[in-house]
Amino acid sequence: MKTVSYQGVTGAFSHLTAVREFGEENHCLGLATFEEVFESVEQSHADYAVLPIENSLIGSIYENYDLLNRYDMKIVGEHYTKIEQCLLGLPGAKLADIRYVLSHPKALAQCLRFLKQHEWIKAIAYEDTAAAAKEVAERGDPAYAAIASENAGKIYGLELLEKSIEDNSMNYTRFVVVSKQAPKNVVADKCSLEINLRHASGTLASVLNRLAIMGVNLTKIESRPILGSPFEYVFYIDLEFEETKGQLIENVFNGLSTYVQRLKILGLYKRGNLWTR
Amino acid sequence: MKTVSYQGVTGAFSHLTAVREFGEENHCLGLATFEEVFESVEQSHADYAVLPIENSLIGSIYENYDLLNRYDMKIVGEHYTKIEQCLLGLPGAKLADIRYVLSHPKALAQCLRFLKQHEWIKAIAYEDTAAAAKEVAERGDPAYAAIASENAGKIYGLELLEKSIEDNSMNYTRFVVVSKQAPKNVVADKCSLEINLRHASGTLASVLNRLAIMGVNLTKIESRPILGSPFEYVFYIDLEFEETKGQLIENVFNGLSTYVQRLKILGLYKRGNLWTR
Repeated sequence: MKTVSYQGVTGAFSHLTAVREFGEENHCLGLATFEEVFESVEQSHADYAVLPIENSLIGSIYENYDLLNRYDMKIVGEHYTKIEQCLLGLPGAKLADIRYVLSHPKALAQCLRFLKQHEWIKAIAYEDTAAAAKEVAERGDPAYAAIASENAGKIYGLELLEKSIEDNSMNYTRFVVVSKQAPKNVVADKCSLEINLRHASGTLASVLNRLAIMGVNLTKIESRPILGSPFEYVFYIDLEFEETKGQLIENVFNGLSTYVQRLKILGLYKRGNLWTR
Repeated sequence: MKTVSYQGVTGAFSHLTAVREFGEENHCLGLATFEEVFESVEQSHADYAVLPIENSLIGSIYENYDLLNRYDMKIVGEHYTKIEQCLLGLPGAKLADIRYVLSHPKALAQCLRFLKQHEWIKAIAYEDTAAAAKEVAERGDPAYAAIASENAGKIYGLELLEKSIEDNSMNYTRFVVVSKQAPKNVVADKCSLEINLRHASGTLASVLNRLAIMGVNLTKIESRPILGSPFEYVFYIDLEFEETKGQLIENVFNGLSTYVQRLKILGLYKRGNLWTR
């Protein structure tokens, strides 16, 4: 049995993703912060961590890119999860009776249209979407509701008052599975890279030329300015390739090192089902 | 006198940026949503709009990229603003007496550490940071505080209880100034582009090669998958160049059109002071 850590409590989107990826038979360990999740793997309290790395509406989650670096962990898999926010109340509660709704600030920010349309409901920030569902169930006051996943509602015995209340339904999160070390002789068809470049346009073109010659598909590229280091950038790059090219890819990365300040392989892994396909 | 629209109320970071960019002598028009801000320029109720387009902690703000497209507006300038969240209370209020804090969900999400350290304070989602400051001032109950800019506190007569309570102090937002039409014969040293590509790595390399040959600096590149269109991406690209190259740049963009599905110039403008310099 493996232990898989994630940020949040039972019923959080990260927990759902961990269960989908690893199955019910493994042990899931919910922790308060992303940092504690990395720490749990570092300290070998968990074998794997499941962490959100980007979202279709808000883009990359820099905090987890930063922690991947600080803890020097490897991405060993990925998983796409549709984020659907629901209004959950006590059994028998009616929407018109709800006066307070609890949820994580980011989930509240995703449901601004719903909150505006229901101005009699006061939105209260809570540490976690699923923890909000738990609190509503425990409080037992029908004036309170939570915004969380439908699954969190089932887990805590709440009723689905309104489904998909998020402003934009094209809401998908890409999660990565992270572990302390990359498995040996991994069969991979995707790779995540982090490279540091100066004088970006010329060297970046050289890097992309090199990848293009190999027939590698670029599925993500994103520059991030390094605060305090003028003209220096970190680039997050994801590549997809045929499974057989795995070894070839590693060799080419070594070749790229002449162009870049720093190149780090964040992980070589099998791709998940991308939302766009 | 010009009218400049922005999202939020007086004292919002967007409002501060509008005042810094245009001076006190112009008329600032605060509106509830980004869409209403674009609509105000479209309907000629405002000459310019000031809109956040990216942030050092969360990256690009896709909603405004999408609206730039839908309304076919042009970026005519940019401005970087440091985002510093403060706890603001009634004059004479003490931190220990605060029971409720109002702010925008995104601002609450930026101050999770502070909220965790002060667990007796309940965080309540409010439409806007500055509107929260206004509400606290009007309510007159010393148990209520707001999280907003120091400036919002001054505007609404609140006292600064705690400065810079955000989790990460490297918090800068890049705002763009938008208008209906690009000025003629503009003197520019920066350009924002949006291009659509298929089979990204090869064509993107060609595009970057072409720019590299011209000695143009890439200051941003970001891919965004197009949901529902497999293998197709939109790229947000910012370029900097010497002022004299402005006309040259426009010619080269025409040359790029052979490589790309679609190329759109979001704006040619003078660069602001970048946070990294």
